[in-house]
Amino acid sequence: MDSKAYEKGMETLGKMVSPEILRQTVENVRKFSPDMAKMVIEFPFGSIYSRPGLDLKQRSLITISSLVTQGAEGQLDFHIHAALNAGLTPEEIVEAVMHCLPYAGFPKSLGALGVVIRVFQEREISYSQA
Amino acid sequence: MDSKAYEKGMETLGKMVSPEILRQTVENVRKFSPDMAKMVIEFPFGSIYSRPGLDLKQRSLITISSLVTQGAEGQLDFHIHAALNAGLTPEEIVEAVMHCLPYAGFPKSLGALGVVIRVFQEREISYSQA
Amino acid sequence: MDSKAYEKGMETLGKMVSPEILRQTVENVRKFSPDMAKMVIEFPFGSIYSRPGLDLKQRSLITISSLVTQGAEGQLDFHIHAALNAGLTPEEIVEAVMHCLPYAGFPKSLGALGVVIRVFQEREISYSQA
Amino acid sequence: MDSKAYEKGMETLGKMVSPEILRQTVENVRKFSPDMAKMVIEFPFGSIYSRPGLDLKQRSLITISSLVTQGAEGQLDFHIHAALNAGLTPEEIVEAVMHCLPYAGFPKSLGALGVVIRVFQEREISYSQA
Amino acid sequence: MDSKAYEKGMETLGKMVSPEILRQTVENVRKFSPDMAKMVIEFPFGSIYSRPGLDLKQRSLITISSLVTQGAEGQLDFHIHAALNAGLTPEEIVEAVMHCLPYAGFPKSLGALGVVIRVFQEREISYSQA
Amino acid sequence: MDSKAYEKGMETLGKMVSPEILRQTVENVRKFSPDMAKMVIEFPFGSIYSRPGLDLKQRSLITISSLVTQGAEGQLDFHIHAALNAGLTPEEIVEAVMHCLPYAGFPKSLGALGVVIRVFQEREISYSQA
Repeated sequence: MDSKAYEKGMETLGKMVSPEILRQTVENVRKFSPDMAKMVIEFPFGSIYSRPGLDLKQRSLITISSLVTQGAEGQLDFHIHAALNAGLTPEEIVEAVMHCLPYAGFPKSLGALGVVIRVFQEREISYSQA
Repeated sequence: MDSKAYEKGMETLGKMVSPEILRQTVENVRKFSPDMAKMVIEFPFGSIYSRPGLDLKQRSLITISSLVTQGAEGQLDFHIHAALNAGLTPEEIVEAVMHCLPYAGFPKSLGALGVVIRVFQEREISYSQA
Repeated sequence: MDSKAYEKGMETLGKMVSPEILRQTVENVRKFSPDMAKMVIEFPFGSIYSRPGLDLKQRSLITISSLVTQGAEGQLDFHIHAALNAGLTPEEIVEAVMHCLPYAGFPKSLGALGVVIRVFQEREISYSQA
Repeated sequence: MDSKAYEKGMETLGKMVSPEILRQTVENVRKFSPDMAKMVIEFPFGSIYSRPGLDLKQRSLITISSLVTQGAEGQLDFHIHAALNAGLTPEEIVEAVMHCLPYAGFPKSLGALGVVIRVFQEREISYSQA
Repeated sequence: MDSKAYEKGMETLGKMVSPEILRQTVENVRKFSPDMAKMVIEFPFGSIYSRPGLDLKQRSLITISSLVTQGAEGQLDFHIHAALNAGLTPEEIVEAVMHCLPYAGFPKSLGALGVVIRVFQEREISYSQA
Repeated sequence: MDSKAYEKGMETLGKMVSPEILRQTVENVRKFSPDMAKMVIEFPFGSIYSRPGLDLKQRSLITISSLVTQGAEGQLDFHIHAALNAGLTPEEIVEAVMHCLPYAGFPKSLGALGVVIRVFQEREISYSQA
């Protein structure tokens, strides 16, 4: 086992989301398939997110854009939480979804906005564009 | 006509790519369909790219991620040029494509890397990861 | 602000869906992000749908096909309503979804059919292929 | 009507899923649109699945990979059932979803894994990777 | 063999494209895999395109939108030819591609426009939006 | 560095394609970005393809289906070569592409068939469906 990538992955995940969200997300997968959990932790978080070259805020923008573009709404809430924790402002996150309108198309951006609205409500973020 | 969005779009495009690339890209479309050219200039560049809230470097990362994810290699070279002109380093651009590996999948990221290699060669960028 | 595109967008939307559906759809977005609502109203409806060259029935067929193909089920009910209001018959709408079988693939068409069934039930359309 | 393809389709479907799942899946479509039901039975099952050249286990792997890749979670449970009935082991099915990680991307594979977990629970399969 | 669907398919194809394009498209596939050619002729053209309920012009719009949305540029020229032969005007075809801008996204629509420009040149259509 | 995954990846790749194709594919990426090459070798080939649970023939079918479904024609030739080397017959490979017709849609399958035809010609495989 590549224990170093796993450790780096858990460490990076620890910076990205709260222990509770981490537990919910990872535990569900780990109980069912420890190998799948290992891969999810090691590759995107241990090998990619933990690299230098781009900071967590930049990486969050890239991930959000990819998820919006492929319509992966089920994985988007995790990464909205991560983006807020990385220091992107609510305004920047909404702006990123808006930026996707001409590239990913309106249906994908509108679907993603629904997830953003829900996560902001959960975190009681009183976002107001003015 | 929304002449203001058009002007803002041309102004933003002027900051993003060289006059030559702009002419090549826009002229081809404009000669065939002035309405299509107008929309392409007004909406993504006049209404989206020119908004405050995210800077050009952040917007480039989001666009590149969306293009990689949808496999839109034909539009990618324009935006690699724009990303370099906005001040993203070659290292950051390659890193962004690499970041897409787990999200967009390896085939899309590898296809995109081919475009990056070609654009760097055209611009004689001696990129070297060390 | 491009108030003309906005007005044309609202006018076109007024022809496409009932005031109730319009309010539900737009209000939710507008309360959260007036800018996003503005773009959604101005570009697809003020700049595209309101153009001459294709009538509302033709535009509905194109939109439905694009939504089926990208699996955007969350946006499909709005456009099934709009298609019916534009004068496409229930038979034509089902036929359009069926036409997508070889192009978008069976999974996407079957998913879309589920939305069509639900909207027809809501509108108490007793569709019967005979 | 191509009654032979229809019969072959129903026969193949009878080997793939239980009468109950078949009834649920097909009846819903047939009541609404007999033509759509006929096409769904005839083409994928009467013309494709019933061909020689690949066995049902191989065909299940190909279908699952396509559904994972296009994010068609709504059609995935039917084909997880079919894969188990064709004789693929639970381990092979999870392995297939895992194999999609680098090709379809992590978000699609993780979404698919959620469907696998649910179907295994419904069938009281105590899957355990060891 | 469902010889009726095959005959209807060939008949429909005969109305859609010139004998030369038909020969080029079908022969290539038929020489390599007669079964694949048979399916391509029977299902989309014998079973779908030849159905009543929508005319060839409506079906062309739906097909074009699906191809634009999935970025299937390689299949688009055949269907631009078919659309012109079905009686859609060059203006309507360009308008259909333009209509896809907000739904399929700008990169897909721009890619499709390139194919339209090429086919119009081949057919010496002097399209001019005025 | 996870040298074990790298070694396993190179070993697995050595079984999948000829030294010449391996060199062409990997060298191009490695010269430009050693890190990207490392990831491409380690994750799909060192961590996924080299796992037990599915054999190389099954894995080839899954990969081909994913590539067909996402229209990744640029990566498909490598995996047609790998499928043949793993022992899938030309008939099984064509059958796999045909199986994708209803799932990935006809345009994607037809595009993929073009790549299969080209690779079979390069390898002078006189495939003949009889």
